[in-house]
Amino acid sequence: MQNRMAAAAAAAAAKKLLHQRRSIPNFSQINRLSSTSGFTHHCAPGHLKQFLASYRWDLWKSCLIHMQNMSAIHHRKFGSVASTIVQRNPTFSTINDDDLIYFEKILGVKKVIQDHEELKTANTDWMHKYKGSSKLMLQPENTAELSQILEYCNSRRLAVVPQGGNTGLVGGSVPVFDEIIINTRRMNSIISFDKVSGVLVCEAGCILENLISFLDKEGFIMPLDLGAKGSCQIGGNISTNAGGLRLVRYGSLHGTVLGLEVVLANGSVIDMLGTLRKDNTGYDLKHLFIGSEGSLGIVTKVSILTPPKLSSVNIAFLACQDYISCQKLLFQAKRRLGEILSAFEFLDAQAMNLVLRHLDSVRNPLPSSIYNFYILIETTGSNESNDKEKLEAFLLHAMESGLVSDGTLAQDFSQGSSFWHIREGIPEALMKAGAVYKYDLSLPVEKMYDLVEDMRIRLGGAANVVGYGHLGDGNLHLNVSAPQYDDAILAQIEPFVYEWTSRHHGSISAEHGLGLMKAEKIYYSKSSETVQLMASIKKLLDPIGILNPYKVIPSSLVS
Amino acid sequence: MQNRMAAAAAAAAAKKLLHQRRSIPNFSQINRLSSTSGFTHHCAPGHLKQFLASYRWDLWKSCLIHMQNMSAIHHRKFGSVASTIVQRNPTFSTINDDDLIYFEKILGVKKVIQDHEELKTANTDWMHKYKGSSKLMLQPENTAELSQILEYCNSRRLAVVPQGGNTGLVGGSVPVFDEIIINTRRMNSIISFDKVSGVLVCEAGCILENLISFLDKEGFIMPLDLGAKGSCQIGGNISTNAGGLRLVRYGSLHGTVLGLEVVLANGSVIDMLGTLRKDNTGYDLKHLFIGSEGSLGIVTKVSILTPPKLSSVNIAFLACQDYISCQKLLFQAKRRLGEILSAFEFLDAQAMNLVLRHLDSVRNPLPSSIYNFYILIETTGSNESNDKEKLEAFLLHAMESGLVSDGTLAQDFSQGSSFWHIREGIPEALMKAGAVYKYDLSLPVEKMYDLVEDMRIRLGGAANVVGYGHLGDGNLHLNVSAPQYDDAILAQIEPFVYEWTSRHHGSISAEHGLGLMKAEKIYYSKSSETVQLMASIKKLLDPIGILNPYKVIPSSLVS
Repeated sequence: MQNRMAAAAAAAAAKKLLHQRRSIPNFSQINRLSSTSGFTHHCAPGHLKQFLASYRWDLWKSCLIHMQNMSAIHHRKFGSVASTIVQRNPTFSTINDDDLIYFEKILGVKKVIQDHEELKTANTDWMHKYKGSSKLMLQPENTAELSQILEYCNSRRLAVVPQGGNTGLVGGSVPVFDEIIINTRRMNSIISFDKVSGVLVCEAGCILENLISFLDKEGFIMPLDLGAKGSCQIGGNISTNAGGLRLVRYGSLHGTVLGLEVVLANGSVIDMLGTLRKDNTGYDLKHLFIGSEGSLGIVTKVSILTPPKLSSVNIAFLACQDYISCQKLLFQAKRRLGEILSAFEFLDAQAMNLVLRHLDSVRNPLPSSIYNFYILIETTGSNESNDKEKLEAFLLHAMESGLVSDGTLAQDFSQGSSFWHIREGIPEALMKAGAVYKYDLSLPVEKMYDLVEDMRIRLGGAANVVGYGHLGDGNLHLNVSAPQYDDAILAQIEPFVYEWTSRHHGSISAEHGLGLMKAEKIYYSKSSETVQLMASIKKLLDPIGILNPYKVIPSSLVS
Repeated sequence: MQNRMAAAAAAAAAKKLLHQRRSIPNFSQINRLSSTSGFTHHCAPGHLKQFLASYRWDLWKSCLIHMQNMSAIHHRKFGSVASTIVQRNPTFSTINDDDLIYFEKILGVKKVIQDHEELKTANTDWMHKYKGSSKLMLQPENTAELSQILEYCNSRRLAVVPQGGNTGLVGGSVPVFDEIIINTRRMNSIISFDKVSGVLVCEAGCILENLISFLDKEGFIMPLDLGAKGSCQIGGNISTNAGGLRLVRYGSLHGTVLGLEVVLANGSVIDMLGTLRKDNTGYDLKHLFIGSEGSLGIVTKVSILTPPKLSSVNIAFLACQDYISCQKLLFQAKRRLGEILSAFEFLDAQAMNLVLRHLDSVRNPLPSSIYNFYILIETTGSNESNDKEKLEAFLLHAMESGLVSDGTLAQDFSQGSSFWHIREGIPEALMKAGAVYKYDLSLPVEKMYDLVEDMRIRLGGAANVVGYGHLGDGNLHLNVSAPQYDDAILAQIEPFVYEWTSRHHGSISAEHGLGLMKAEKIYYSKSSETVQLMASIKKLLDPIGILNPYKVIPSSLVS
């Protein structure tokens, strides 16, 4: 594994060697690779090491081929970067002038993007962690155009990467090499909305926030809400099975998405755009496309059940002395708040300290002491006084039974927002604190915090281990904060964290998906028979493998 | 198409002919067919008619082969029986002594059932509408045994029918011909229950009511409830994606089932038995098995999210003058009762009249007048006084705005049960009223009752058209009641009802599945590309097609 500094050092060493030996290709070849890739493409460590040791031409050549055909994650700001190195599938074609002429004929010039700046943005994920080298982005305006594109790409063996708002966190929405980017932003119409059933039908490129605004005027809400709502598209949300803030209340997209239209790799349009809550006529195939990260088909239209907007929102911020009290509180909240509970979030003392230290705008609502755990509870209901009464009774009981050591109820919208700001500010505080190794895990609630404590023991004083997340969903965000990146720390964390999660039947990706980052790590959470079946389905639906290659499924199974 | 009388007449005619012509096989052959099949296997109408006209041996022989190889629904009590005639797949083997020896070796003698009476029950669906002629029922006790059975059957080309409680309504859980019945009743252990997360893990053969009782003691409920709960098994519920009474509140099984273990046709065990609410590691393949009616794999273990049991239940019975008021009331209920709404059922005046006329124990809670529509609203919440207050405020508003013409709120459990009894008594009242043609449809709520009215116009005075169902889910139970069965009435109903449903993007099976009854009608609700994709997946997972053949997918696509 190499980081940016190691890559730069290797390139400098290679440059030195090139000046020493005239029989080796000149530096411009390395330079070109470096500048176009921003050091994201580099030689496999073993090969480069061997080359530096022996100066042998055959190894240099092999190394150069690797440099052209391999992609790795390098940006150490994000931790967990080891071993995601893949090779370009040599059976894929590269685009030529005839391809461009064909695409321009289908789409018109303005929807065939070759502009360097636009491509640079589209090639890079929003965290600047992954970087592809695609030379072409297509922006179809409707299903028919998208279908024609895919049919052509499939026949020409041109790999594609479907892209929505490009807000993913695991390298799923950017090219790994030169895949054609198919961006759905122009497919952004609301098709219908039924105020009786609450069923919204729209195109995949609709931005989540625009849908939220549209529904707000109609008196409804989207059943999912995300920090990235200003950019992310509903097609992308569905393709990644986005979780978000409302899952504890409204469940996953597998429950709320009623229908989809998708285009398969060969251009076939599969119309499953039902708007019915109940439909038992055959296999419910839309679920294959929810969370398959664009690797089985591209979602073009969506039908989704939207809940009515309820008028009463209440937010409490509580302190607990131990994790068992947090669990009991969750149990009580599900029972006593049941139908109005809309969020149950937790953070530990380490997370609270970070936020208080690094974010100027945050103050502790419970300043009398530092407690081991903090809980944010939100309720959403239809009657303000009833809901408040219910929440107050719940809190009183929790205090009396000793589960809660301290607590406060937001008196207005502003105070409620300030409570949310503590919880939502943790990632920013972590970034400000230095280097951070981030993990998004699902674990049985009763085991969840054991991992944080085990990690703390394991790392000793070398790093600050922080635990927070969606306790109501069993979703832990485990973060390890250190002054700077250190391979020794990483070696302590991985594969320990994945093995621990696997041993406790958890998920190594609760809500972010696998993308490029974790495709090869799938076995930590899925049995080999299940992964094999996934690969069979991938081959059935996309025999050539043009759809979002190198992602989700281990490459060895589908290439 | 033939009914029981026609079949009996045909058999009598055949008997007469046999006595006339000695070269024709003796009557015992027909008799045997008749007695083992109870007239459910009969000759294709065209062939028998030809035979009766010509007395020709070759046609008789051809007819006899058809009699052995064809299965049709005959029981006219249930209406909608036309054209479900399929041929036994000639590539399937029939069981021999070696097979029995093998099964006894794996399972032991007591789990290999050949007893005539037990098989008679297992061959027949609970409505006595479908009847197979299986000679063997296997009752594996665990996944390993089931896996061995399937691996063997697959290698021997022996077709199987998975069977749970055998409470299905579309002929999905009984053999069509001689398929081996694999009953899961012995796999009935509760594996674990987590009181914090509410996640229950159990074997597929657990009876729903037993799970409900178990959870009740823990303070939880199952997210589904059905009339058949005393017999149906959770594996069957999942395989048929059962809807039931709580769907409006807790959503479909696609949202609440967290994990499954299934055995594929070749015996492979696919362990997807996660217990996590959030897990985005690869394709969520469990959804393939929810609602695929045992045709892709046999569910062996289940992990399901169970909601906490809430203490407060309130029930209102209301009257509306028109369907638009029912729709508006639903809209208001979702908004004002939102989080506590747990049922929104409707029945029309025709349904109410039937219940009042035929069920002694029922009285009209709103006797001052007969209204066009009645609505049953149930709320379930955590605070009795809050919930009652909310429901009363909602009802007051509905009365004041003129949506509701009359209404009453149950004062105690007994009165609430009597309101439910009206709604739940409709099927029984219909059966007592005479012949009934039954349809289970999903339609957009705003169109739903148009079909009832169109059917009324179409049938004129020939029959009584009754509409009721789960309005909150857009699920209409359309029933046509007549003094006796009449092909002229059926011809007026079908295919009109399916075409109408299809034209309005509805589902011809909201919650019952397709089974044998509607496998060939799938195109009314699904596009040909989607059905083709289903067939591809069936072929991928079950290449020989041994799992529940003749059902769900049109035979022509998978044989």
